[in-house]
Amino acid sequence: MYWGYRESFLCIRLSFVGVGAEQRLLTLLSYFNSFVTRTNTCGELRSAHVGQEVTLYGWIQYQRQGLFLVLRDFQGLTQIIIPQDEAHSHVKKLLSNAPVESVVRVTGTVSLRPPGQENPKMPTGDIEVKVETAEILNSCKKLPFEIKDFIKKTEALRMQYRYLDLRSFQLQYNLRLRSQIVMRMREYLCNLHGFVDVETPTLFKRTPGGAKEFLVPSREAGKFYSLPQSPQQFKQLLMVGGLDRYFQVARCYRDEGSRPDRQPEFTQIDIEMSFVDQAGIQRLIEGLLQYSWPEERGSITTPFPSMTYEEALADYGTDKPDTRFGMKIVDISDFLRRSDIQFVQNALSYPRGTVKAICIPQGVVMLRQECITTDAVCDTTFMEHSFPGWYSSNFPDSKIAPSHSPPSLLQCSALGSLRLESADLLEAAGLVLRNPTVFHFLWVVDFPLFLPKEENPTELESAHHPFTAPHPSDTSLLYSDPTKVRSQHYDLVLNGNEVGGGSIRIHSAEQQRFVLEKVLKEDSEVLSHLLEALEFGAPPHGGIALGLDRLISLIVDAPSIRDVIAFPKSFKGRDLMGNAPDYVTPEELEPYHIQVSWPLAEKEAKKT
Amino acid sequence: MYWGYRESFLCIRLSFVGVGAEQRLLTLLSYFNSFVTRTNTCGELRSAHVGQEVTLYGWIQYQRQGLFLVLRDFQGLTQIIIPQDEAHSHVKKLLSNAPVESVVRVTGTVSLRPPGQENPKMPTGDIEVKVETAEILNSCKKLPFEIKDFIKKTEALRMQYRYLDLRSFQLQYNLRLRSQIVMRMREYLCNLHGFVDVETPTLFKRTPGGAKEFLVPSREAGKFYSLPQSPQQFKQLLMVGGLDRYFQVARCYRDEGSRPDRQPEFTQIDIEMSFVDQAGIQRLIEGLLQYSWPEERGSITTPFPSMTYEEALADYGTDKPDTRFGMKIVDISDFLRRSDIQFVQNALSYPRGTVKAICIPQGVVMLRQECITTDAVCDTTFMEHSFPGWYSSNFPDSKIAPSHSPPSLLQCSALGSLRLESADLLEAAGLVLRNPTVFHFLWVVDFPLFLPKEENPTELESAHHPFTAPHPSDTSLLYSDPTKVRSQHYDLVLNGNEVGGGSIRIHSAEQQRFVLEKVLKEDSEVLSHLLEALEFGAPPHGGIALGLDRLISLIVDAPSIRDVIAFPKSFKGRDLMGNAPDYVTPEELEPYHIQVSWPLAEKEAKKT
Repeated sequence: MYWGYRESFLCIRLSFVGVGAEQRLLTLLSYFNSFVTRTNTCGELRSAHVGQEVTLYGWIQYQRQGLFLVLRDFQGLTQIIIPQDEAHSHVKKLLSNAPVESVVRVTGTVSLRPPGQENPKMPTGDIEVKVETAEILNSCKKLPFEIKDFIKKTEALRMQYRYLDLRSFQLQYNLRLRSQIVMRMREYLCNLHGFVDVETPTLFKRTPGGAKEFLVPSREAGKFYSLPQSPQQFKQLLMVGGLDRYFQVARCYRDEGSRPDRQPEFTQIDIEMSFVDQAGIQRLIEGLLQYSWPEERGSITTPFPSMTYEEALADYGTDKPDTRFGMKIVDISDFLRRSDIQFVQNALSYPRGTVKAICIPQGVVMLRQECITTDAVCDTTFMEHSFPGWYSSNFPDSKIAPSHSPPSLLQCSALGSLRLESADLLEAAGLVLRNPTVFHFLWVVDFPLFLPKEENPTELESAHHPFTAPHPSDTSLLYSDPTKVRSQHYDLVLNGNEVGGGSIRIHSAEQQRFVLEKVLKEDSEVLSHLLEALEFGAPPHGGIALGLDRLISLIVDAPSIRDVIAFPKSFKGRDLMGNAPDYVTPEELEPYHIQVSWPLAEKEAKKT
Repeated sequence: MYWGYRESFLCIRLSFVGVGAEQRLLTLLSYFNSFVTRTNTCGELRSAHVGQEVTLYGWIQYQRQGLFLVLRDFQGLTQIIIPQDEAHSHVKKLLSNAPVESVVRVTGTVSLRPPGQENPKMPTGDIEVKVETAEILNSCKKLPFEIKDFIKKTEALRMQYRYLDLRSFQLQYNLRLRSQIVMRMREYLCNLHGFVDVETPTLFKRTPGGAKEFLVPSREAGKFYSLPQSPQQFKQLLMVGGLDRYFQVARCYRDEGSRPDRQPEFTQIDIEMSFVDQAGIQRLIEGLLQYSWPEERGSITTPFPSMTYEEALADYGTDKPDTRFGMKIVDISDFLRRSDIQFVQNALSYPRGTVKAICIPQGVVMLRQECITTDAVCDTTFMEHSFPGWYSSNFPDSKIAPSHSPPSLLQCSALGSLRLESADLLEAAGLVLRNPTVFHFLWVVDFPLFLPKEENPTELESAHHPFTAPHPSDTSLLYSDPTKVRSQHYDLVLNGNEVGGGSIRIHSAEQQRFVLEKVLKEDSEVLSHLLEALEFGAPPHGGIALGLDRLISLIVDAPSIRDVIAFPKSFKGRDLMGNAPDYVTPEELEPYHIQVSWPLAEKEAKKT
């Protein structure tokens, strides 16, 4: 049962500390056992400890016939031998009757296991502890599920009893590694590069277009705070305030209703620097990730490759390409000009008409049925053509999407989805295309500064946010043709996931006002404090934010960000353990001058 | 103007890093200048740099007659010599015309100042930089106040232009020191003692009696999240989850309406440990503070002294005694038994009647007028007797408060207030009683577990919170006479301010249920998840929380916690810079199913 337990956590930490052997030993001795009466953790004892009297605290993982038990704590497992002699009958009774997951203290002597009974898979597998005294500190009632990683349980149950799920190896590992990575990041920023950790408010006011911001009613009638989506304004104001280098592990809030694998509160490594350019921020982040990267996950090489937004769309059909595998989008127009397929010729006859394709080298492993699935993907995304199966005879290894307009986001993204879908299918068929233990970082740069609004394409909106500075080469276009302006925004992509994004900001009040009022046609009044701040000698500045939850989930290869958060919300934003959000009484709403507007259906239900 | 500028910040940091001289030098060179094009900060150049070409970025602190200027950044000041020759006329024009607080880049050569012009008060006072090229990066419009520490401005103005106030030496110093102290605390907890930094949710549900919790409407009609006052429940659940050692620099929320020197959001160093006792937590915290204590503030000695709640009340009339000075409360009943003052005799005739006093050794410096003031203090607090001036003839150095019931909180606290008030008066008269650079830490222990409710003294409420464990010697009293039970709560007091508090928690579900239901008569349903968690093998555990804002403000001797927070709210909970909280439109409230209940007066005002 316990022999599958993986290597203890201590190793992770020691590799981080990076100290000499002697100090390591010292650390090993005092690290986890300071300020408490245990002598050792359950993952610590080795043959070198034989003969020592030890006191351990932990949970009963397993107990067999009153003969022995396995004691577990956050660091590992130790085999405990229950005494069988008359003098210890009380101890035997205690330990034999304690339910699994009860928490106990045992004191006893470390002995070598009898020859042949060592367990090489267990770090403490050479020894066992012969109990002298024991105490049941708290008994455990019947569990809703077993605390074993390989026992499957529904996520709802795991979240309801999160405190039990936290005892699993995997969650302990994820949370501890997260803590250590963040600590290393802090060391890099704060101790090595002079960044100042500044806490910024989370009770602020609504930002323009901040539809996803939670509201917090205040005691002033009609006035609300807002929980910001990021400390964007504050970090820029800190630069105006001469802080020079700011960072914060910042709690951010986003109310998106129900969305899978999003959390209403999340954490970002938030960074801002004065007098810096795009390359400066990129080198900083590469250094940061290299410094904090856990040894056990291999090493990463820097600088990270860079790709323009245009290249990313053209080659991968997405602005966050997974560059762990090929199957790039290629233009096969020239090749097809010789063909006599009517709708292809049709497409090519348009001005700048092209036909693009991806080549799936091992596509033959895909079954006919799966090809139909990918057709559906392509159809749904593309919504223009369907090409029922003809290519399977012409190009058995390829997928083709004809195009009758300049390469646009829509067409490329159809092929981009197809590429990922095909990778899924190939992997389902047994090929490894995207090894989760391989880490491909990528900068995507030169985004457009503005995009047409989805609901009204004649109007423009910021591709990222209104504070992003235009590309230095495109500044004059801002006033003549803003749709053509590239921005100084950069995204950091890891294995096809956006894990960070940032930009050089506008530091000229005049330019900022022009963008807000003339290009975006927004009321700049709500940002008057920021606009005014830019007039008081604001330095040039830029920054970035890394999505910590996503980054850690990729590092530990967790299926969801919920696996790297101690107390996550369900995809509907609920806390299933504590039952939040919850009803409150009208009296509790009174000081905030609000009342509930019950939807009619609920009003009716309440009546009956 | 600039010669009063204090020692540069770099020194603080280096004393923290605690590395060898060689590494210090290396750090000095790269620390603040990585990833940017400046070669040095404005606080860095010394005579050793003479002859080097340097590039500096900073703000114009002062400019004189086109001859020289003083450039400032976060680290210090450098004198810049403006070239006067024809070839540099452009540079001269630029720099002479740039308003104060404009942000500039200058490149030039470091030279020794002419003999006799060195400024020994300025770290860079031996050198000056002869400009070759310069660039105005952003101009500054007319300032609402000068960026100089000694210029007085109203706090409202400082908060409205917080980004300008942040440029002051004092705020830069406070925020940077805060960042460094917290970093050291993290190193101590995370790297030296195996604590895991775990982030807990801030969107949770209302706790019983959580009248001070902000509400956050959710998209489910009638359901609200709550912003918790501390991660109390989560940290206990982490212990149930086997995390063993948790810490977090936790954002907490408390809606108290208007209260001076309180903030609606604040930060605590939040700690919890399994298998620990009160002494264990106390030693941990003493080590933590000693390790993170800034060198420039002297050193602190451990262990900290300890005092029971009863002693604190009897000797100092408060549960947070300022032990930097004497003037303890003494019982003078025996002495006064021989007197013939009628109301004193009266008081002493009651069962256990006592007369208490404080002796003010240098009380003669207090003027008659001030004695009247202290009378008022005493009267207001005490509200039972006034003793108009008779003691001034009898005991010119003392204040006496007669008492006709057992020493109670009320009487002692009257004398406690009098003691502090007298200290104020003595210090106003020029004596130093409470040196702010002397740090007296003190543990106050053995608090009562329950107190009579203020509004209904026949009912009990928790003196701290319902999860506090009873003192081991008093456990049986819990069931017989709960008013007599002492708790395992401990407060950490620094110079008369509560800077932390914690306790060993109840880990038995049965005991916790008894406290909630039988003693406190509360509905335990809202805490059912916690009660249930205790039944699944919860380990014995305890913890503490330090109020970071208050602690830092005492360390830097700031008059208010607002001086150690980058963007504080006013005492009415307003952000004067961004104007939060603010009105939102009814449409924005719609997704949250709430509407504003306008008070009548506002409704009327809105109409007109």
